[in-house]
Amino acid sequence: MKNVIVGQSGGPTAVINSSLLGVFKTAKDRGADKVYGMVHGIKGLLDRNIVDLTSRIKNDLDMDLLKRTPSSFLGSCRYKLPDIDGNEKTYDKIFEILKELEIVAFFYIGGNDSMDTIMRLSDYAKKINSPIKFMGVPKTIDNDLAITDHTPGYGSAAKYIAATAKEIIRDGLVYDYPVVSVVEVMGRNAGWLTAATALAKSEDCEGVDLVYLPEVTFDIEKFTKDVGKFLQENRSLVIAVSEGVKVADGRYVCELSEHVDYVDEFGHKQLAGTARFLAGKIAEKYGVKTRAIELSSLQRCAAHIQSRIDMTEAFNCGGAAVKAAFEGCSGMVVTLKRVSDYPYICVTETADVHLIANVEKKVPREWINADGTNVMPALVHYIKPLIQAEITPLWVNGLPRHIRLDALSDIK
Amino acid sequence: MKNVIVGQSGGPTAVINSSLLGVFKTAKDRGADKVYGMVHGIKGLLDRNIVDLTSRIKNDLDMDLLKRTPSSFLGSCRYKLPDIDGNEKTYDKIFEILKELEIVAFFYIGGNDSMDTIMRLSDYAKKINSPIKFMGVPKTIDNDLAITDHTPGYGSAAKYIAATAKEIIRDGLVYDYPVVSVVEVMGRNAGWLTAATALAKSEDCEGVDLVYLPEVTFDIEKFTKDVGKFLQENRSLVIAVSEGVKVADGRYVCELSEHVDYVDEFGHKQLAGTARFLAGKIAEKYGVKTRAIELSSLQRCAAHIQSRIDMTEAFNCGGAAVKAAFEGCSGMVVTLKRVSDYPYICVTETADVHLIANVEKKVPREWINADGTNVMPALVHYIKPLIQAEITPLWVNGLPRHIRLDALSDIK
Repeated sequence: MKNVIVGQSGGPTAVINSSLLGVFKTAKDRGADKVYGMVHGIKGLLDRNIVDLTSRIKNDLDMDLLKRTPSSFLGSCRYKLPDIDGNEKTYDKIFEILKELEIVAFFYIGGNDSMDTIMRLSDYAKKINSPIKFMGVPKTIDNDLAITDHTPGYGSAAKYIAATAKEIIRDGLVYDYPVVSVVEVMGRNAGWLTAATALAKSEDCEGVDLVYLPEVTFDIEKFTKDVGKFLQENRSLVIAVSEGVKVADGRYVCELSEHVDYVDEFGHKQLAGTARFLAGKIAEKYGVKTRAIELSSLQRCAAHIQSRIDMTEAFNCGGAAVKAAFEGCSGMVVTLKRVSDYPYICVTETADVHLIANVEKKVPREWINADGTNVMPALVHYIKPLIQAEITPLWVNGLPRHIRLDALSDIK
Repeated sequence: MKNVIVGQSGGPTAVINSSLLGVFKTAKDRGADKVYGMVHGIKGLLDRNIVDLTSRIKNDLDMDLLKRTPSSFLGSCRYKLPDIDGNEKTYDKIFEILKELEIVAFFYIGGNDSMDTIMRLSDYAKKINSPIKFMGVPKTIDNDLAITDHTPGYGSAAKYIAATAKEIIRDGLVYDYPVVSVVEVMGRNAGWLTAATALAKSEDCEGVDLVYLPEVTFDIEKFTKDVGKFLQENRSLVIAVSEGVKVADGRYVCELSEHVDYVDEFGHKQLAGTARFLAGKIAEKYGVKTRAIELSSLQRCAAHIQSRIDMTEAFNCGGAAVKAAFEGCSGMVVTLKRVSDYPYICVTETADVHLIANVEKKVPREWINADGTNVMPALVHYIKPLIQAEITPLWVNGLPRHIRLDALSDIK
């Protein structure tokens, strides 16, 4: 008997279900009996909310729909396991359920917060001499995981952001008077997603005029001057700004105008309104028409415009995690290693989860221009391969078809 | 010599350039010598900012790119012609330029404001006995034009909105605690666009839970109660709300916000959005996580997810306008007449511009449920054919390729 279990955690991406499929299919191909899914991650496991995936992903059509379905098929959670010391009861409960289900390998698809779960569980397994293997499958639109060249989920978000930026630029330049469009992109501490707007610049597109990443301290005075320079040419412009830009005293720009309305259980502030605040500043200062556009959750769920490179890599990371676990690995995360840029070649490796959990990778300063108002060609060069090629949605009745989980637990 | 001229006006749509192509190609096919384009509509004409389209749309590739390019290829304006009486100088100037360019027919692609231009110009032509024909080509994502069954531009916006709603719903239901997502859709006075979110409900999607159109007076108390009912089931929900919903005293919901983002050059308060305001109300009342999502200008420029039905009809409307003008029509607007729902058959007709200019068509009350919290099946039935079938973007280097105008005037 060789059963495995898989969960999804943290914010979803357009391709997180391809990683799930990579785990499912590879585990089945390599002889797993049952592939269980935790509904709502580790929290679902603790609640014994577990499904038998073989009864949910039944055929090729289900698999192809799963690849094209945004959000986490199994549901997600933002639950973080407590310290092992003093909380052995929680860990014992988890291992008891895993034993009951005859689990030999445990896969968790998530970002740096979720890798904390893999780290703690594999540490505990070592402590109690459990033979269960724990493997992390990287996922995040934020692209802020250490060691890996990039993360599955980033390429599709970048493709959506760049394509949308091209459309916003065409739309923004339509009138014969200046309009300043400020586009707010996700990324609390890392500017990878905002940087993707720079890909809009191409033979057929003017590109965004100014790009502000959270890696550079934001200065409202300087910002209004930067914009003023463009307005001297009496033309419309499009500005990309990360939701996470901060002024010198450490406050987020959006905190300068509005209260933070929500803090999640990891202490992350829910940010909104940076674009709106900055658009207001520009309108006030220059009396021009402004427009604030938040890409909001659309940038992580726009599965209708996936990058095929990204989708394939997401699948491969899931598969590589199974392969590694079945070969004896534990406490590791699958990483992507870029072998070559053009032609783009990328392979999977594995890295110790302790080097990845809770670590954030930011955009290197040298990939941002000296002025902090745009990205350097090296950054565009880095992102470009990740947005390549497409996957056609399965259009049914005019809309992309998805697959959803009937979430009733199979083991209660 | 048989020259024609065409302009685009008002807010762009994903398919407004297909109408431009319809005018261009049909005029050429039917023997036009030159097809001129006004850059930034009638305002560009007055500024003698005019291009020879034959030198800008040179081959089949240009034509296929034009169909897939969002925003108005020729640029737009929001300029409304003054009353004829007392402003004969402006009109004489226009007719002088048209005479100089040997124009026999004038086409204007726009919504009910833009049709005002066609009405005034054709009225003036009659007055001065000018033989020039003036034809309107309908366009607006808002679908609020009278007489025509629907407007080109609406189907693609509806497809984008419905597809995005499906993705937001999947994303919104991912956590194991309730999240209330409020999606704000364009439409100041007519709820056609917001109604398109109802198309999300399908075999694979729960659909939006509540839909609020501006045709029904909005009641904040009732709204929070409506939401509360769903929250009793302790689940996430997705709400669609038109930007134009108003309370009983006639104020827009967003005007109820005490928070003023900024004051613009005319002293107008720029208010936080409707979705943001309502999400705040729900968070306050029920202490749940909320999310405000504005589809903003994305809903009118997302050319990467056009409806092919819409694109084809946009092209046909342009072509039909040329045919009508060349057959002697003037002061008319091309309209769409639905012959049959399923199978969907729709033909072009023409209608007197006086019946269309400055008139707004709203959603009939009987297509909204009694409670004002959702749309009726008849409305879904009406929209569904309009979002059918797809047109693949021309993907170049991972992004949809567009075509843009080198806007230097050819006649100055």
